[in-house]
Amino acid sequence: MAAASEFDTDTAVERRAEGRWRGEVSDRWDVVGGAPNGGYLLTLPLRALAAELDRPDPLTATAHFPEACGPGPVEISTEVLRAGGHATGRAVLARAGDEPGRVRLAVTATFGDLGAADGPTNVAGGPPDVPPLEECVDPAASGVEVPPIVGRFDVRLDPSCLGWAVGQPSGVGRIVGWLRFADGRPVDSLALPLLADALPPPALNLLPEVAWAPTLELTVHVRARPAPGWLRAVFTTRYLVDGYLEEDGELWDADGRLVALSRQLALVRTPPDGA
Amino acid sequence: MAAASEFDTDTAVERRAEGRWRGEVSDRWDVVGGAPNGGYLLTLPLRALAAELDRPDPLTATAHFPEACGPGPVEISTEVLRAGGHATGRAVLARAGDEPGRVRLAVTATFGDLGAADGPTNVAGGPPDVPPLEECVDPAASGVEVPPIVGRFDVRLDPSCLGWAVGQPSGVGRIVGWLRFADGRPVDSLALPLLADALPPPALNLLPEVAWAPTLELTVHVRARPAPGWLRAVFTTRYLVDGYLEEDGELWDADGRLVALSRQLALVRTPPDGA
Repeated sequence: MAAASEFDTDTAVERRAEGRWRGEVSDRWDVVGGAPNGGYLLTLPLRALAAELDRPDPLTATAHFPEACGPGPVEISTEVLRAGGHATGRAVLARAGDEPGRVRLAVTATFGDLGAADGPTNVAGGPPDVPPLEECVDPAASGVEVPPIVGRFDVRLDPSCLGWAVGQPSGVGRIVGWLRFADGRPVDSLALPLLADALPPPALNLLPEVAWAPTLELTVHVRARPAPGWLRAVFTTRYLVDGYLEEDGELWDADGRLVALSRQLALVRTPPDGA
Repeated sequence: MAAASEFDTDTAVERRAEGRWRGEVSDRWDVVGGAPNGGYLLTLPLRALAAELDRPDPLTATAHFPEACGPGPVEISTEVLRAGGHATGRAVLARAGDEPGRVRLAVTATFGDLGAADGPTNVAGGPPDVPPLEECVDPAASGVEVPPIVGRFDVRLDPSCLGWAVGQPSGVGRIVGWLRFADGRPVDSLALPLLADALPPPALNLLPEVAWAPTLELTVHVRARPAPGWLRAVFTTRYLVDGYLEEDGELWDADGRLVALSRQLALVRTPPDGA
């Protein structure tokens, strides 16, 4: 039997009692600065909710991040708000040992069955224009020190979006690239919220120095179950206002179908001595 | 003393006990089909959370709509997940008399103080190109029967987006117009989530007949406190897939500043005999 994938291992949750789950936040999904990726953290309560609601696809999931949450054991409390059909639940996550009432992460999600969706279709636009794989940059092979999360994915980035990496931000808040799991795990609808937060923030192209862009809230709409293969991703920040920004994402599958839309609200902090 | 505005009257909530609030859903904000507008419903728990968290601006608020909620008294239960700074809370709303555990609406929001925001700014793009007010259409004066919510606002819509109203949908999922409260109440940051759901859905331009587009989830980012005067609004639906669609909104104030971004996931239902 094949070993469990990194994603499945590191997002596994175990039911301890009615609405009580346990998981373990891994340090393998840390981003720059040493904190676990927000889309990764979101996935643990999302898996608990998927099991409680017994529906296959997280049509829309929102996470708020009241406090940082480092690696280690976590406790998840779930509530079913509506069962069946479009099923809605919410969850909070705390670190094991946190005092009662402390919350690191709050998630609300509505699940459904995209396999049974049969309404009308009318799509304006298509996948982003990404250069061929062999013309893109592999951050893991660039010789630059990269955070652990980069090792979890095969990533190929459009070089025209990478000015920030050599101290020359393009001024355009856009990152485009190819994406899949490094260990070959297929991307399913439960993995899309993580992939919707897996590329470097486009705000890196808007500022001479960005120390950190913590996410206040992340919402992902899963629009279709992905076909096997590479996903194409585009992330855009158009409005950086007084330190707050949105980051809009689209993920498209190998068949050229939109599979996820994402939007987050984040806060840019520049270093005290930043230009 | 001036009478309270329609908005303030119809979104008032009263604290009954620790984390327990009472409100009254009015029928003045009903949309086509007879249900209260989703942005209006969201505002009642949002006002309870604003009071509990004691922070002025809902930076990001998400509502899920597990069940329809008609007019009448409602009970709201709030929880503070983090106080101070970026303060996060969540709430559920039920109709008075609902059996315990039944939830019509679930809201999570993170509040802050936009008056104290002082980070960097970098804005790509500007307000939508809306024809002058006098060239736009006032739905309330069109002679067409309109739902109650239309009376709550002064609305002027770009005529090029109104083909659906005369049986000729443009095929482009876009609605553009001017917007303010009809009774002159200034639009503040607590009113923006309602305004972000106040225009007709752009999906009306994508289908020959749309019976109903119930919202599964609505998220609004409040990005600035609006200047007095008309707001310009643009709402877009690019991806209608198997009956699910996103609706993206932008609201811009009279000074040409972005004040809110919104996105919702909705479901299109066509009539059984629809073309």
